[in-house]
Amino acid sequence: MFDLNAYLVEKVERINAALESILKTSGPPDRLLQAMTYSLMAGGKRFRSVLCVAAAEAVGGRLEDVLPAACALEMIHTYSLIHDDLPAMDDDAMRRGQPTCHKAFDEATAILAGDALLTLAFEVLSSTESVQDNQVRNWMNVIHTISSAAGYKGMIEGQMRDMAGEGHLLCLEDLENMHALKTGALIEASVAVGAILGKGSPDQIQQLKTYSKNIGLAFQVTDDLLDVEGDPNIMGKDAGSDQARCKSTYPALLGIEQSKQFAKKLVNNALKALDYFDNKAHPLRAIAYYIVDRKR
Amino acid sequence: MFDLNAYLVEKVERINAALESILKTSGPPDRLLQAMTYSLMAGGKRFRSVLCVAAAEAVGGRLEDVLPAACALEMIHTYSLIHDDLPAMDDDAMRRGQPTCHKAFDEATAILAGDALLTLAFEVLSSTESVQDNQVRNWMNVIHTISSAAGYKGMIEGQMRDMAGEGHLLCLEDLENMHALKTGALIEASVAVGAILGKGSPDQIQQLKTYSKNIGLAFQVTDDLLDVEGDPNIMGKDAGSDQARCKSTYPALLGIEQSKQFAKKLVNNALKALDYFDNKAHPLRAIAYYIVDRKR
Repeated sequence: MFDLNAYLVEKVERINAALESILKTSGPPDRLLQAMTYSLMAGGKRFRSVLCVAAAEAVGGRLEDVLPAACALEMIHTYSLIHDDLPAMDDDAMRRGQPTCHKAFDEATAILAGDALLTLAFEVLSSTESVQDNQVRNWMNVIHTISSAAGYKGMIEGQMRDMAGEGHLLCLEDLENMHALKTGALIEASVAVGAILGKGSPDQIQQLKTYSKNIGLAFQVTDDLLDVEGDPNIMGKDAGSDQARCKSTYPALLGIEQSKQFAKKLVNNALKALDYFDNKAHPLRAIAYYIVDRKR
Repeated sequence: MFDLNAYLVEKVERINAALESILKTSGPPDRLLQAMTYSLMAGGKRFRSVLCVAAAEAVGGRLEDVLPAACALEMIHTYSLIHDDLPAMDDDAMRRGQPTCHKAFDEATAILAGDALLTLAFEVLSSTESVQDNQVRNWMNVIHTISSAAGYKGMIEGQMRDMAGEGHLLCLEDLENMHALKTGALIEASVAVGAILGKGSPDQIQQLKTYSKNIGLAFQVTDDLLDVEGDPNIMGKDAGSDQARCKSTYPALLGIEQSKQFAKKLVNNALKALDYFDNKAHPLRAIAYYIVDRKR
């Protein structure tokens, strides 16, 4: 029986150590770096970076092969949270169990800390002096995969649609497209990048794409369910915020029971795509199960 | 006699055409892309991208060698202007002769349009499928140069210090350090990137670094002078805004005449660094003269 908890603890520790070493300075950190560190090291689940590592391992690679990419993914995810939380956007006061960046610092600092984390992601991804010549193109491919997924045809457009959709009920198709952009694109990129740097075959990369598409959506459906049914103390943020904001959610469109069934179906699709893989894909399988069972 | 005006017109046309083709969509642009296009195509001077092209030419390269990098530099510069103009930062209503992005659209859209332009810069820089294998590492080097200059140890930290400095007079050293970060870093990167992609020698790159450091600061001193003496109709923004905001400026610290002398000294330093170059560096020389003579 594969122990996902032990796996997550080990990987998250490695990823956090790498993030801390990137943010380390000789002197005392200035206000900008304090804000970046505050949000980046606030104890996120590290879901995207762990997926990246697990995808690399599934195709025979190692954590060391992907660590800078895993760090960059967390930086981009955190920047998107900082900006989404701003008063001009979702205007959220709490995140990961602590005040949001603009509450703990100020709005200008939060905007710049987000900008800085996004920029730092690409600085880390391009720190490839020690990478062998025949690997540089793979890293370039990784930068392209991540920037496309995070950009105006991906994550940022998803946030635009999410905001535009507030106050009225979307149809199921629009809701799914919005999530595919807002959270799906970066989750897919996380898996793709792991597979690229782990030197997966085109067939493997294709199967992992199906896997990531399905768990990305399952993740969102569960997120919506947690917003209705979750325990705010475990989640570190308020429940019921979607409803308060008149956001379209799967429970609102499908009902709670059907949403749970839908999430299970998506996870089954994801697992099926992994049939092709040996037991090195056990972490990816366990993550798929975990997504629908998680409490935060 | 080298005709800088004709040179600028030709290069800016090429750069604008490349930017437009990057932003082109098959269907009607959505609101996010409208906002990105609105700010990016608002008729900026294209100072950074022209510098990049001119630096490449000075070492024997061509515009075609650097065009994606030139575009990326303009995207990053424009994103920084959109975010700096936000209500939480400088709260500016006009830019490049038209309402700022958050005035023409809204605050959330402006934040996301800035994020999207920053991200798109790296998408463009990593679109290197057609680049030869032996050039991929140079492009990686370019991504690293630009992301370092634009990040929390460069441009973004400069904006933090600029805001922190409002309301009290900085000493000359702090003012210079702030500008070296806020505008100098990206200007230096523009020249460095041109030299790298134009395949300049280490010696050439070193001399161009001296050139860019000096014109970067000269550019800022002139900017301060224009804010005191410039014609708002030519500049496309209000004059006197630095004083209204109690910002430290060179005219405030040195007086107008001494500021002009200082700008001229910096330009002479820049020209001296170009002694080493043949007439292919004429555009860089003319740009240095232009910086202190410009009206906007």
